[in-house]
Amino acid sequence: MTAQAPAAVSAGRELLEPALRATVDRLDRPMREIASYHFGWTDETGAPVPPALRSTGKALRPALVLLAARAADDDPRPALPGAVAVELVHAFSLLHDDIMDGDRTRRHRPAAWTVFGTPAAILCGDALLALSHEVLLETGTAGGHRAARALAGATARLITGQALDLEFERRARISLAECLRMAAGKTAALLACSCSLGPLLCEAPEPLPGALAAFGSDLGVAFQLTDDLLGIWGAPEVTGKPAGNDLRARKKSLPVTAALNAGTAESERLAEVLGRPGVPSEADVREAARLVEAAGGRAWTEAEAAARVASARAHLDGVDMPDRVRADLLELADYVTTRSR
Amino acid sequence: MTAQAPAAVSAGRELLEPALRATVDRLDRPMREIASYHFGWTDETGAPVPPALRSTGKALRPALVLLAARAADDDPRPALPGAVAVELVHAFSLLHDDIMDGDRTRRHRPAAWTVFGTPAAILCGDALLALSHEVLLETGTAGGHRAARALAGATARLITGQALDLEFERRARISLAECLRMAAGKTAALLACSCSLGPLLCEAPEPLPGALAAFGSDLGVAFQLTDDLLGIWGAPEVTGKPAGNDLRARKKSLPVTAALNAGTAESERLAEVLGRPGVPSEADVREAARLVEAAGGRAWTEAEAAARVASARAHLDGVDMPDRVRADLLELADYVTTRSR
Repeated sequence: MTAQAPAAVSAGRELLEPALRATVDRLDRPMREIASYHFGWTDETGAPVPPALRSTGKALRPALVLLAARAADDDPRPALPGAVAVELVHAFSLLHDDIMDGDRTRRHRPAAWTVFGTPAAILCGDALLALSHEVLLETGTAGGHRAARALAGATARLITGQALDLEFERRARISLAECLRMAAGKTAALLACSCSLGPLLCEAPEPLPGALAAFGSDLGVAFQLTDDLLGIWGAPEVTGKPAGNDLRARKKSLPVTAALNAGTAESERLAEVLGRPGVPSEADVREAARLVEAAGGRAWTEAEAAARVASARAHLDGVDMPDRVRADLLELADYVTTRSR
Repeated sequence: MTAQAPAAVSAGRELLEPALRATVDRLDRPMREIASYHFGWTDETGAPVPPALRSTGKALRPALVLLAARAADDDPRPALPGAVAVELVHAFSLLHDDIMDGDRTRRHRPAAWTVFGTPAAILCGDALLALSHEVLLETGTAGGHRAARALAGATARLITGQALDLEFERRARISLAECLRMAAGKTAALLACSCSLGPLLCEAPEPLPGALAAFGSDLGVAFQLTDDLLGIWGAPEVTGKPAGNDLRARKKSLPVTAALNAGTAESERLAEVLGRPGVPSEADVREAARLVEAAGGRAWTEAEAAARVASARAHLDGVDMPDRVRADLLELADYVTTRSR
């Protein structure tokens, strides 16, 4: 179940980094320091981290922006502000998420709020969100305005997904449909937007932006399904999070929700184990993982992820784009469900 | 030192409210409930609060948007999305500020985070910020795009001001110039933007948007100077905050910073009183207020506020607009320094 990131992702990261750093450098010092730490460029003291030692993110969203731009135009550079903007929105959501969830670790390092304090980390997230809008609006082009509107909508849907996630924590039972709706907001909205921003910034007419947004939306749900599998069965040394982390946090992830709603004896037993008061023991975490699998939660999640990837691929059928770009997009779709972190 | 809000502010509030409510209604339930509580329309249980009993804000920023729009156009309605957007950004900043500052009271009621929890209140702020951009970009006009860019820039400056404010808490000594720079970001940026959004949305050419932005910027600093005076000497039953609240929180507000930097014997004594460990006693709070005044901090702040209002008024000289609108803007400028809350 592991795979290397496709070349398009590494290529995207190389184009992105100088532009992202130049944008983050526009922030005033305290916010810049926190953002720079979050992106892995500096350590807790502000000292630069050599590239080889950095715990950076996958930068999947900006790679999608730049790859999808190449579906519209040989030169993806007009889409660079879009790549920067989606990575800024993603960083904003991670900074605030870690605070809201009380997650102390991000990418093998202490989460920003544990280093700089909650108020400064809230504010840094706010600053990155505001900056994402500035970056797109500064293009001053019609495509830039359409892109800005798409990003504002996607951000609103992302936040709605987060709000559902928070609400689920207080409820005993969540339906699978509700859980999928949450994933559509929390993860798929920004991935869908990432796929449409490139064509929008390159002024490509429909059906390209719409088809790529639909591709990205399915891809996003597949991404979340895979993320939830990794949250239970991922290797801690690769994911940067403890094994069974989501079960320890009693997160109502997609595999857990599928298992709880499966109507099996294991579903009942899982509800009982997850309902025990206090911090779950390591034995409880292992038992819960076994029960999710026995109730069919793991198999359902894997099958649903595969179905979403197939649906994503189908959205590209009959849409005109260079063969090389299509091949890269399809490779990326496969990577999303086979990645190990 | 008290004054009624000018008619332009009440008129603005009446135009604003239905549009603001319709916009907030677009949020999903949990976020809508928190926003609705924050705006004073509902209580902690979600039950509607009758208009006469509501603890609403002053809605000064939307009033400025609509009033400044009338400088450009008889019909201020094209500026309504701008009025909604600035009130959303203002609400976003208050929701996050109260969390960051640990303030438990807002407009005579428990602050939203104390009712709905910190994670939900962070998220509601995020949702309102994202919504503010959507509202302007949905206009689809050239003016709407210029307005969106102005708002994104103002939001970024507002956040920079907040970051300086946070940083000041950790430092023993702040210069008056630094403190004024903080106020320029934290308060003046959004007020300046409020004054330019109306003309921008009405597609008015320069010099009107620029002159009104300059007017709003000076007005914003005057507003903060007055706010800081009220934070020490305001009547609790009017401000909705305990007397001497800013001194109890050891806030390095403008009067305090002016007093500390005045080089008088009282400046030294004030530093000593504010430097005492633990929660300040009521006697310490009263003593600090007396020392700020004795060191000249109150007089400096009052004089600076008056100078900023004079400068704001001067920005309107020679700029073409209906006499009635000019009179309303000047009345509003005077209100800012004579208000009691």
